[in-house]
Amino acid sequence: MMELVQIGVIRSPYKRQGDAPRQGRLADIESEIEVFPEYLDGLADVERCSHLILLYWLDRADRTMLKAIPPGQPAERGVFSTRSPNRPNPIGFGVVDLVAVEGGTLRVRGLDAFDGTPLLDIKPYSSEVDAIPGISVGWMENMKRNPGT
Amino acid sequence: MMELVQIGVIRSPYKRQGDAPRQGRLADIESEIEVFPEYLDGLADVERCSHLILLYWLDRADRTMLKAIPPGQPAERGVFSTRSPNRPNPIGFGVVDLVAVEGGTLRVRGLDAFDGTPLLDIKPYSSEVDAIPGISVGWMENMKRNPGT
Repeated sequence: MMELVQIGVIRSPYKRQGDAPRQGRLADIESEIEVFPEYLDGLADVERCSHLILLYWLDRADRTMLKAIPPGQPAERGVFSTRSPNRPNPIGFGVVDLVAVEGGTLRVRGLDAFDGTPLLDIKPYSSEVDAIPGISVGWMENMKRNPGT
Repeated sequence: MMELVQIGVIRSPYKRQGDAPRQGRLADIESEIEVFPEYLDGLADVERCSHLILLYWLDRADRTMLKAIPPGQPAERGVFSTRSPNRPNPIGFGVVDLVAVEGGTLRVRGLDAFDGTPLLDIKPYSSEVDAIPGISVGWMENMKRNPGT
């Protein structure tokens, strides 16, 4: 009933565990977002956005895990207090800089998703509703060594 | 294959179209997030987060739409440049203030989801990776009159 459709695919330099930057957002690496032809109409006007929210499907995740031990941390935590990819609904979330739109392909910066990751949604980012300044989650930083959510 | 599971339910004062504030984030209204018993282990440590990202399923959405006319706007736009709930994968996204954790129930502020909305995921919010200051999307404001994404 809550069945997702793949609207595109992420092309990135991150091929396997360990390739990804500690923080996708802080790296300068570009990824390409390829939107499938049948969804191209939905891309109209997207070039007017400077930043986008991307949702994608973490297809290598273990969906049975409810606890995770963040790297470098002494104890396990509930997955909903981490950004581990392993969680019941492994939906990845990233805020990216939109560099260019070339037909059905978006060039973006700041993403840490693996190459081949299925794309689920694209939304315009607005600081007014989406940004909260000054919130730091100490143990979270260690969770982002590999592509996560 | 990309099938979602419902991990909980959102209890809010917004019962129908028109009830919701123009901007969920800017309103002071509290909602309750009820996490189902089988997912409670994942909630451990969540009380240490001041702000959360919630993902939820917009079950009233029209998934066939690729264009939307934002209220007050003269022309239709591609849905991926809007926050309309109508899109191929109607996954709602909201950043909320965590007010209190009471067993399997989270009290939060800043959400504009309808009462009864299925909950998909909870993630800790971190300004370092999730916040981009100063990004305003003019036509987007008009899209948030009713619960959206």
